[in-house]
Amino acid sequence: MTVPRIGVTAGDPGGIGPEIVVKTLARSSALPEAAYIVFGDPRVIGAEEARLGLDIAPRAWRPGLPLEPGLYLEAVAGPGGPAIAGEVSAANGEASFRAFEQAVAAARAGRLDAVVTAPVSKTAWALAGRPYRGHTEYLAGLYPGAIMAFWSARLKVALFSHHRPLGEAVAAVRRDALAGFLRNLHRDLGKLPGGPFRLLAAGMNPHAGEDGYLGREELDEVAPALEMVRSEGIPVAGPFPPDTVFLEALDKPDTVVVALYHDQGLIAFKLMAFAAGVNVTLGLPFVRTSPDHGTAFGIAGKGVADPRSMEEAVRLAVVFSATGS
Amino acid sequence: MTVPRIGVTAGDPGGIGPEIVVKTLARSSALPEAAYIVFGDPRVIGAEEARLGLDIAPRAWRPGLPLEPGLYLEAVAGPGGPAIAGEVSAANGEASFRAFEQAVAAARAGRLDAVVTAPVSKTAWALAGRPYRGHTEYLAGLYPGAIMAFWSARLKVALFSHHRPLGEAVAAVRRDALAGFLRNLHRDLGKLPGGPFRLLAAGMNPHAGEDGYLGREELDEVAPALEMVRSEGIPVAGPFPPDTVFLEALDKPDTVVVALYHDQGLIAFKLMAFAAGVNVTLGLPFVRTSPDHGTAFGIAGKGVADPRSMEEAVRLAVVFSATGS
Repeated sequence: MTVPRIGVTAGDPGGIGPEIVVKTLARSSALPEAAYIVFGDPRVIGAEEARLGLDIAPRAWRPGLPLEPGLYLEAVAGPGGPAIAGEVSAANGEASFRAFEQAVAAARAGRLDAVVTAPVSKTAWALAGRPYRGHTEYLAGLYPGAIMAFWSARLKVALFSHHRPLGEAVAAVRRDALAGFLRNLHRDLGKLPGGPFRLLAAGMNPHAGEDGYLGREELDEVAPALEMVRSEGIPVAGPFPPDTVFLEALDKPDTVVVALYHDQGLIAFKLMAFAAGVNVTLGLPFVRTSPDHGTAFGIAGKGVADPRSMEEAVRLAVVFSATGS
Repeated sequence: MTVPRIGVTAGDPGGIGPEIVVKTLARSSALPEAAYIVFGDPRVIGAEEARLGLDIAPRAWRPGLPLEPGLYLEAVAGPGGPAIAGEVSAANGEASFRAFEQAVAAARAGRLDAVVTAPVSKTAWALAGRPYRGHTEYLAGLYPGAIMAFWSARLKVALFSHHRPLGEAVAAVRRDALAGFLRNLHRDLGKLPGGPFRLLAAGMNPHAGEDGYLGREELDEVAPALEMVRSEGIPVAGPFPPDTVFLEALDKPDTVVVALYHDQGLIAFKLMAFAAGVNVTLGLPFVRTSPDHGTAFGIAGKGVADPRSMEEAVRLAVVFSATGS
């Protein structure tokens, strides 16, 4: 029997990442059987365990040796001092970046099946001279077809574009790029359990442009892209009005909405998935999941962070790993 | 005792408007006590009653005379032939436009307290040479401060812009226009029951721009507008990330989210209000409400249209009329 090897990065030391990682792994008996390897600063993890009164007692990770199920730690140098809850700093940015970078390197080298990432701060990354807008953008640099998607029992969403200003996102909706995206998405979804999946494409303008009266992108870009890939056998319907397409997809486990920009997809997803949504990166040779929330600096260090989204991210990573995505 | 006088337009004869109006008024004993005056073609209304097996038996409306509670009809010339379910035509567009126009004229002349409008087709209006993008745009021509808002028990939303292409909507987010909008909104909400209301303003870009990394409109336009009106005593917080602001407002009856474009507000509203959301136009000297859905040509004539949103629109019109909005 092969034990799934799930890397878990602790995220920004000043955010809620270490807290939700410790809370999740402290209940490892409730998680699927796997080897969970935390990538982070032992001092940060240890301080978090002490603060929460939880003991996860990870063993040191030896990548070369066969693994039993359980908890492991891969030590990554941290900020060089105690983390201050809520603080946005270059040192914290560098620490969270390096933990992520090392986990990804391990996955690329075949030593991990999945990487689950706790939240990082893009601002802290920028202060540290790591100008990525997020985990997904870093991965997209390594794998240009990487896709940001969101997974929950009630609703599934894939984003055509994500971390860019809305005006830029509007201008980027072009037929060839959208057709390429849909091809990648269809291929990547084909590797996941729960399929085959069908796609519902949102339009861009109010009422999906209403025959051109409220915008032409549906006629000029979106519909032609859908026709192109439909002729190749990809099951995609639309473009639908953005304010009703999510109702169409709700509670249909084999249906994924294609959203054309970040908030089109995430306004719907966060309302329907509540605290248990998972961010998934498709199009990689390994699995990558994360909670669908941010660092929550405002509540860091208070012990009140809700670990459910992190737990679901860990569970989904194991499920997806089992099918060899 | 004064009886609220509620005009009800039947909407596009080829859509579900006549059906949901007849279904709603046929259960008038379940509605608040008022005089309900239908503006529409007697043949269209009569045919709908026959098809549904419901009899609303309206009396002719005599605007000059005191009114008892009950159902009345103001005959408006219709398409000049039987309405064909699902057909988009100039004749139907002209009929729905004239019914609406006459109801608005009656409200402006003080003969109605409220106008409740069933759905019309902007395409049919355009075919009829009535180039308005919707009821709200017609009303905004008469009352430039008119505001499109959405009302439900769980969530309330006001739209800074509505029926325009997304690219235009993005470009229209300017500090002075937004400050003016917030002043109008605050004043209009002050006339409604259930207040005082507080406002939560959404940002425009992902994560509300994340300190400028994902767009500058929050820094350059939205935040300055909020500061301006806050200094005038208007209770508005934000800008918040668009994908979490609705969670903040949910189930808080005194809280209204300010959305910067149509789908930002309506993706959230339609998911949370389900079939019972109401579209409200603020900033008029009379009340105007409507269901939050369209003509639904695809299911017209089948007797399956859900009248709940229309019923709620009628109820809310009576509630708002009572406070002399």
